[in-house]
Amino acid sequence: MPYIEVNNDFAGIRGLLAFRPETAGPLGELANILLRDTEGLSPAERELIATRVSYLNDCFYCHNSHGEIACVYLDGDREVVDQVRKDPRHAPISNKLKALLNVAGKVQKSGKAVLQEDIEAARAEGATDREIHDTVLIAAAFCLFNRYVDGLGATTPTDLSTYPPRARQIAEMGYGNHIFSSPQPH
Amino acid sequence: MPYIEVNNDFAGIRGLLAFRPETAGPLGELANILLRDTEGLSPAERELIATRVSYLNDCFYCHNSHGEIACVYLDGDREVVDQVRKDPRHAPISNKLKALLNVAGKVQKSGKAVLQEDIEAARAEGATDREIHDTVLIAAAFCLFNRYVDGLGATTPTDLSTYPPRARQIAEMGYGNHIFSSPQPH
Repeated sequence: MPYIEVNNDFAGIRGLLAFRPETAGPLGELANILLRDTEGLSPAERELIATRVSYLNDCFYCHNSHGEIACVYLDGDREVVDQVRKDPRHAPISNKLKALLNVAGKVQKSGKAVLQEDIEAARAEGATDREIHDTVLIAAAFCLFNRYVDGLGATTPTDLSTYPPRARQIAEMGYGNHIFSSPQPH
Repeated sequence: MPYIEVNNDFAGIRGLLAFRPETAGPLGELANILLRDTEGLSPAERELIATRVSYLNDCFYCHNSHGEIACVYLDGDREVVDQVRKDPRHAPISNKLKALLNVAGKVQKSGKAVLQEDIEAARAEGATDREIHDTVLIAAAFCLFNRYVDGLGATTPTDLSTYPPRARQIAEMGYGNHIFSSPQPH
């Protein structure tokens, strides 16, 4: 049960978004741009950054939701998602993504934790300014989303089998109003 | 100098927003709703919450920018803004706002730091579900904005006399594209 009376049965962030549709609009639009843009970082890479930051913030709902979406993009490779979530330095991913995940991990702590040398290390692996920008903003955005979900005590399904159907829907249709419809209420 | 080449001379978050207009849209819309809505919390109270969270995140640009905007709404009472920034429990503000600032301070640490008893304490002082929601989302949003600004090393004016003209413009016109225009480039 959320800390506030949301007057709906939607799980996780969806219950909060439905409570306050005015802010749901720009939050959904921001998620669509940051997580589904195909210029620079791929949607899979974007969701992996979101998953890692949510894991560092100990947000069960978000790291499982976005981990499942990354998994859809990675053709069901749940093992790589789990490695990125827990120990990205040893995951089978590009050195560029490892360097960007290091930046994202610094952002999770604090904006000031990011050092020029972290940025230079990403650039040395081929990251562009746009990719660095998007990495920082994705990480910062999940410092918002994670706090929104847990700070209002959003309903968090503990049954992991409920996450894949929603993940497939989002991978297909994006973040938008349809998240309040099927395939399941929670 | 920001860590990335933003190709403009705008200070603070504006330099980053101009670099990536796609994400600037929803970020500006979110700020307008969360900080200028007059239902429940007043714009002054909203800016005070933003100022306090930005101070806790040690974001010089944001706590000075939003502190100045709060100051405009409070008819120039810079002392109350400074008390809220540094020690809200002893500031001359309502007990409801003190309880909501306590919730905001918990959100700044982590979503999970917010306890049911923090919410109940705010409710006991008359806070509505919508006010609690907006407090949590404003605090979470500034955990994004502060990290965006400092995580990309945005240009931060240290001359405090440059903040009031911009604050008056935002108090009058809101958060929108005009922030890239006068009264000053930085």
